[in-house]
Amino acid sequence: MTYNNIFERHLDQLHQEGRYRVFADLKRRQGSFPVADHYSQSGRREITVWCSNDYLGMGQHPKVVAAMHEAIDTVGAGSGGTRNISGTTHYHVELEQEIADLHGKEAALLFTSAYVANDATLSTLVKLIPGTVIFSDEKNHASMIAGIQHGGGAKVIFRHNDLADLEAKLRKYPKGTPKIIAFESVYSMDGHIAPLGSIADLAEKYGAMTYLDEVHAVGMYGPRGGGIAERDGVMDRIDIVNGTLAKGFGVMGGYIAASAACCDAIRSFSSGFIFTTSLAPAIAAGALASIRHLKSSTVERTSHQERARRLKSMLKARRLPVIDNPSHIVPVMVGDPTHCKAVTDVLLREYGVYVQPINYPTVPRGTERMRFTPSPVHSNVQMDQLVDALETLWMACPVANGTYVRLAAE
Amino acid sequence: MTYNNIFERHLDQLHQEGRYRVFADLKRRQGSFPVADHYSQSGRREITVWCSNDYLGMGQHPKVVAAMHEAIDTVGAGSGGTRNISGTTHYHVELEQEIADLHGKEAALLFTSAYVANDATLSTLVKLIPGTVIFSDEKNHASMIAGIQHGGGAKVIFRHNDLADLEAKLRKYPKGTPKIIAFESVYSMDGHIAPLGSIADLAEKYGAMTYLDEVHAVGMYGPRGGGIAERDGVMDRIDIVNGTLAKGFGVMGGYIAASAACCDAIRSFSSGFIFTTSLAPAIAAGALASIRHLKSSTVERTSHQERARRLKSMLKARRLPVIDNPSHIVPVMVGDPTHCKAVTDVLLREYGVYVQPINYPTVPRGTERMRFTPSPVHSNVQMDQLVDALETLWMACPVANGTYVRLAAE
Repeated sequence: MTYNNIFERHLDQLHQEGRYRVFADLKRRQGSFPVADHYSQSGRREITVWCSNDYLGMGQHPKVVAAMHEAIDTVGAGSGGTRNISGTTHYHVELEQEIADLHGKEAALLFTSAYVANDATLSTLVKLIPGTVIFSDEKNHASMIAGIQHGGGAKVIFRHNDLADLEAKLRKYPKGTPKIIAFESVYSMDGHIAPLGSIADLAEKYGAMTYLDEVHAVGMYGPRGGGIAERDGVMDRIDIVNGTLAKGFGVMGGYIAASAACCDAIRSFSSGFIFTTSLAPAIAAGALASIRHLKSSTVERTSHQERARRLKSMLKARRLPVIDNPSHIVPVMVGDPTHCKAVTDVLLREYGVYVQPINYPTVPRGTERMRFTPSPVHSNVQMDQLVDALETLWMACPVANGTYVRLAAE
Repeated sequence: MTYNNIFERHLDQLHQEGRYRVFADLKRRQGSFPVADHYSQSGRREITVWCSNDYLGMGQHPKVVAAMHEAIDTVGAGSGGTRNISGTTHYHVELEQEIADLHGKEAALLFTSAYVANDATLSTLVKLIPGTVIFSDEKNHASMIAGIQHGGGAKVIFRHNDLADLEAKLRKYPKGTPKIIAFESVYSMDGHIAPLGSIADLAEKYGAMTYLDEVHAVGMYGPRGGGIAERDGVMDRIDIVNGTLAKGFGVMGGYIAASAACCDAIRSFSSGFIFTTSLAPAIAAGALASIRHLKSSTVERTSHQERARRLKSMLKARRLPVIDNPSHIVPVMVGDPTHCKAVTDVLLREYGVYVQPINYPTVPRGTERMRFTPSPVHSNVQMDQLVDALETLWMACPVANGTYVRLAAE
């Protein structure tokens, strides 16, 4: 058996399970988002994007676009190096100060993505503080799981957002044992929001650091977009915040915000930070403009929440299986990977509605779903079209004993 | 002891060893690179960058800059999602095709950095092919070391570029044992170049896959910039090539190029690929323009090599301790972290020459150095100024028994 045969065997398995991923080849229309062009074998076609994590539409905000243009004209394309070896630009320095201020922390540290920020920070923390036990919510994102695993220390998984279970597990360790509670504020696939204050209470009681992933909340919650911790008034009780520049802020890159000593230690010891070219200056400049704008402007946040509430109530009124939750995420359950792919294929082909099927390993098997992300730039007309299309599909393909009947073959 | 005390203790240790890193806050002058503005407490000052990995100056090439502007105006700032969930743009698709063509492979796969590409690919390969033994050159980059470690499989380290040692180690395993030889073409800190053909011979003889990191070679070697493998006519004997869009190509991001099945398997199973927002479209567009330009234009490559040869011979003529090597890297040995930092501080302050001290863990302790990267945009006048400054410093600070005397305190 050749190496290529082995790769092909793995891919065959995905096809058989109906969860082989096909990427949609898109060109968003800058200024007209969520409208985009979809490229396929049958040519180019206009569609509406319903699954973007550019939650607020900041990816086409004039201030963000202008800042990127300005940076390219001023300093060029790439930074030219790692942060240490010629790759720190004034944009990076200003952006880190802006992020620290956003979260009320002494310092911040940029990474090329929030995935890398989680992976690099969590794995380095365990190396810097030997013997640390990490208490990890069972629904934590893959990047936190990777970081915890790569640190090689002890890990205790607690039930999702379950304070009693977390406390029962914390209690088993002496107060002197170093501990980190790692969790998210908004869980992106279900839309659950963690009880931040109560988790901070437990951290204080048992001497744990709090590590909070606010990737699906920054820019979108809190008076200045500081996330759920800002909204709930508990920013000072979170030791390390992880955030992204790619979702609410519409650009790319990730970060942590924490004490000066913590950021400096991660900066100095994390291989995943040290040995990589820094974000392109235009990316840093765009993110800086976006954060600054959302610190003072609340219209995007207000409209975002209103759009999500409207879509959820429309889906409920049509008795479509939306998972209710207190956040901006709008998941509609399907429960089977092949069916999930088939429904979304029909939506794209027949209705110009682009929503990606969410299958394992992004969600547990049996909970396959569509995940809609209405934004301030999604209009009432687009929402009506979406809900009408979904209703038509659901009527053609009714639920039988909790399992959706297959759509006719394409 | 609080958590912050622990961080501070680690930082104190770095200060004591003289290897605490201070980032230079820069703004390159687009169009006038290597000239840049350096921001410090004493204000803003013009300096010359001598340590950038924008090796060919492509970060300010008009085609690259124009492509980035065009992409921002067409599709906006960020991609808005992971590659699977709305984050694949037509720029990504075109760029992957262009990279596959560059390396003569069936396919390519983009990552947010070449660090992530190495880490994600190597760790996933071991999971897809259980029992794989990875033979790793002892000077391999931190990102390959991370990927090998994260895969959790068997690892055998062979002596740097030592074919006899590699063969002795390969021979110990049955031919049926899956094997990967992981190595670099140009080693970035010493400038060594690996014997690609001979390593490919051994791979064939012992049934190993070849995994080659060409990060410091793509764009710069080979008739179309395909790297050392293209220059040496062995591209078809390398199974997986790792490259960067950040150095020779002047933008940011990384990739692998390999068989269609291999890229598809990594795309489908690698957590570090799946769960991260894709490169911003403007980044992909800039990199695409850069690769296309360097496929046909050779003037940058020719000039790059000439500039490196000239600087090396000037340093040798002044008896400065340059490490000779067959690549474009120009390392000048110092051998002590505190001295290395002091020399570079004086160069920056007194002469406007910016070169970062290279200390442990980037290089082994005792081999601390300055690493100059002359590019096609570094002029003869700038080179004369650099070498004069270095000679003045070396005369003021002579070698005593192999150890450089400390410079006077600042």
